[in-house]
This record gives sequence, C-alpha cells and structure tokens, in this order.
Amino acid sequence: MNRQDLFELIKRKKSFLCVGLDTDITKIPKHLLGNEDPVFDFNVKIIDATIDLTIAYKPNLAFYESLGSKGLTSLEKTIGYLQTFGDEIFTIADAKRGDIGNTSKLYAKTFFDNLGFDAVTVAPYMGEDSVTPFLEYPEKWVILLALTSNKGAEDFQMLETVIDKKETERIKLFERVITKSYEWAGPDRIMFVVGATKANMLEDIRKLAPDHFLLIPGVGAQGGSLEDVAKYGMNEQCGILVNSSRNIIYASLDEDFAEKAREEANNIQQQMNLLLEKNIL
Amino acid sequence: MNRQDLFELIKRKKSFLCVGLDTDITKIPKHLLGNEDPVFDFNVKIIDATIDLTIAYKPNLAFYESLGSKGLTSLEKTIGYLQTFGDEIFTIADAKRGDIGNTSKLYAKTFFDNLGFDAVTVAPYMGEDSVTPFLEYPEKWVILLALTSNKGAEDFQMLETVIDKKETERIKLFERVITKSYEWAGPDRIMFVVGATKANMLEDIRKLAPDHFLLIPGVGAQGGSLEDVAKYGMNEQCGILVNSSRNIIYASLDEDFAEKAREEANNIQQQMNLLLEKNIL
Repeated sequence: MNRQDLFELIKRKKSFLCVGLDTDITKIPKHLLGNEDPVFDFNVKIIDATIDLTIAYKPNLAFYESLGSKGLTSLEKTIGYLQTFGDEIFTIADAKRGDIGNTSKLYAKTFFDNLGFDAVTVAPYMGEDSVTPFLEYPEKWVILLALTSNKGAEDFQMLETVIDKKETERIKLFERVITKSYEWAGPDRIMFVVGATKANMLEDIRKLAPDHFLLIPGVGAQGGSLEDVAKYGMNEQCGILVNSSRNIIYASLDEDFAEKAREEANNIQQQMNLLLEKNIL
Repeated sequence: MNRQDLFELIKRKKSFLCVGLDTDITKIPKHLLGNEDPVFDFNVKIIDATIDLTIAYKPNLAFYESLGSKGLTSLEKTIGYLQTFGDEIFTIADAKRGDIGNTSKLYAKTFFDNLGFDAVTVAPYMGEDSVTPFLEYPEKWVILLALTSNKGAEDFQMLETVIDKKETERIKLFERVITKSYEWAGPDRIMFVVGATKANMLEDIRKLAPDHFLLIPGVGAQGGSLEDVAKYGMNEQCGILVNSSRNIIYASLDEDFAEKAREEANNIQQQMNLLLEKNIL
C-alpha cells in the first residue's frame, strides 16, 4: 500500500486509528480460554468489531512470542485473517527489530514475504545496513523508532549529538535518526514512531519530516491527548496513525468484550472524524 | 550462571569461544533436508562436535523466526538440548529486543522463563525501562548492544553526545550506553556487545568497563583478529566471549560438516588456550 492509498483509506473510513493487537492470554476474557486458539479467536472478534473504524492493526510480537510456537501460529492466523480484507487495512508488525545486514534481511523476509505485513517497526541503533534490507520490498514500509513514548526515551534519544568533535551544530539523537534516514529512503517508504506523550515536540519533528507518516502510540492508557497530537502532528495527507491498544481491546474483560471494544473504537473514530474535518477534508 | 562460574568454565575448557547457531535452512547440508526437523538435527550435530571446545552457544532469533512456528519449535528443541549439559554451557538468545517496560517484561519472560536462556542481547535505544525488565531474573544476563561490528555502527553509535546544550564533555553514544547502564546494574548482570572489527577501540572501552564481560562478534568472516581482541579486550577474568558463526557451522556444506566444524572450533580453541596462558592463567 503506498502513501496515497493510505490517505485514501483514511478519507474513506474517516479515521486514522491503529488498533494494537497486544493480545495477552492472561488478560483476555476467561470464557475464551477453553478454545483451541483463544488468542486468534479473541483477535478475530476484535477485528470484526472494529474494522470499519480502523485503518491499521498492529500486533506486538512480544505477546505472540511469549506463547512459543503456538503463539506464532496465532499470529500467522491473525495476519492471514487480516489479509482477507485486502486493501481495506494496513498491517504493522510491531517487532522493533534491527541487526547486521544479512540478519535484518532475514527479518524482512519473515515479516514481509512470509507473514505478509505491510510495515514493520525497526530500531535504528545499528544504523544503515540494519535498516535498508527492510526497504527492498516495494510498497512495504519501515517504521523507524524515533522518539518513543516511554520514560527511557530520555536516556539516549534526547541526547544532543554532533558528528565530530569540531562540529558545533547540535541536534538530538532522535532528530539525527530522522535526518539520516533521508539517505536511505523518503516519506514514501519510511514512517517514524513518535510518542503521543511528546505531543509538544511534534511541531519540531514536522519541520524535519513534513511529509512522513508518524505512528503515534501512547494516546489513552499512556496519557497522551488526541487533540494535541492532531494539532501538532497532522499534515495535509493526515500524516498520523494513532495507536490504541489496551483502551480498546480490554475495554471489557467479559463476554461483551467485542461490543465494548467497538464502542471505544467508535468514540475515538468520531473524534478523529471531527479532527480530520477541521484540519483537512 | 554468575560471573565467577563463567570464568571457571573458561578456565576448565581453556576457551572463550561462543558458537553462533545462525542455522540457515538454505545453507545446511542437503542430506539433512529430508529429516523432519533439519535445523534441530544440524544444531545437535554441531553442538555434539564442539561442546568441549565451546563456552557458549548463541542462536540468532532471525534464523528461527524466518521459518515460522516450525522454526520456533526447532529453537525450543535446541535450547532444550543445550540444557541437558547443565552448567557446562552458557546460552545466549541473540534477539536484540527492547520495547516499552511492559513489553520488554514479556520478552524477558519468553527468553528466560519459557526458553531458559542464560542471556539475551538487548538494543538500548529505548532506554532504561526497555532494559531493566531483563534484569529482574537472578543469574540471568543482559548483553547490551554497545558498539556493533557492522558498517552502520558509524551512523549513530559513534556520534559525540552531550547531556544538554550547556554541557561541554562529549562522549560517544556507545560510551554513553556503557556509562548509563551502571545506573541499572553492574558487571555481574550486564555484558556489552563490542565488534571485533573495532578491536582498537577495546582499550578505551576497558577504561569505561574494566570488569564487564564483552561479547565480541566479527572475528573471522567479518574480518576481526583474535589476537588483537585478546590483547586489547581481556581482563583478569578473561572478560571476553568471542563469537564465531559461519566459519564454524558452515566449515563444510557436505556430510562431513560436523567433523569440519570441530576442526575449525579446535583451531580457534587452541589459539584461545595460548592467549589465555599468555594473559591470565
């Protein structure tokens, strides 16, 4: 799916919501636990209840890997199910991978070829050859970690950096990640993760990356505001995907979980619709 | 396994070799491909042929994930097999994970509780709360990426950093990772990845981390020299684990692969024995 397709999808669904399928077997409703594949069954019900309100789904790999090979089977079935919706949905593997070139190449094969995701989150610490193998797949996306939503983002991402001892211009590490990535690919192939808890910094980030899509976690459970994110982060192609996980998928821990998930997603989608009307459409 | 145990193991085996089980189904000998689980069978033969010469085994997760749930089963069986050797071997999951606190916690559970690895490689970009969940397991280890062996290491790891605009002391990002990690745990819980291709920098790294174990990839196939690594990297508890993957496990692509892997591992172990005698024992 290319950048224009993604914008069209956003206009069609009047939403820029990404639902995080962080499906935790210890948190899903008890009545599902007798099923053969409770994680997959939970995901299908959440997807069916929210797909018309949602642009993207983003399973975080940690939740599936924690269940071993069985969890990976649940993931394979989930992405297979999402693919039956064709271009109506954008799929993100939240894997935060990154390794030496040959190894990143294998990860890219896993997430793009084998599993068929549209995008994968990539950690930038190891630099160019850890990222570029993910860029070899046309119409697939790298979502680079830039400024994450957690407290630890302060430790390294916010450090002021200079290229060498003589240079005087200082920019923060996450800004360096953004500017460096232009050497590898532009806004048609790369997005950035920017935490909603840092909404006030979105204005500065937009100066460095005016056209990129930003994947924004941390609205809701982690405390960020949707209005602020839209105010500072939107560009004329919307340019933001806002992720919500726990608030939606665990809106109820009972038999009505899918219904309640839909109510929650619907609330967010209605706010998003207003923000899109106000800022773009 | 604690630091002293690891040193005792090194003295007993007269080796500081780590064998990278980067088992690629497209590279292993053809005669294994008819087996039910060729990857596991290959690993068992490599392990049996090298275990008396080897301190540690390090499967890189990318190779197993690329085969889907079947690959994860091969990994589970491989680590299960390694555990039958008890304290005779140190096991490292080369996963390069790192995510927000709750998610890193799940990854830690996966690699330490479920799979039973002794150590896991962790990417530092997301900072403290992405790393510390891995430190909650006694006698388990975090191996933080510091200065990696690939070309892309130049892009961010080598940047000069300052805490804020007023600070004048500049240290490189990878040095900042090392010094910052002292706030989370010391050399009894944390090791660092330092590429052998950067052997000349080991001297400086030893000033920042005199007591830490360093996991050193990049000897052999990637071009680093074992002598230089020992010269600049060893401390009085040895303090280095040197990884070799392709040179050993693909020493032959034929039916004699295990025998040739042993020969190669034996060559390296003999060099290591000399370096240990010269520098420590």
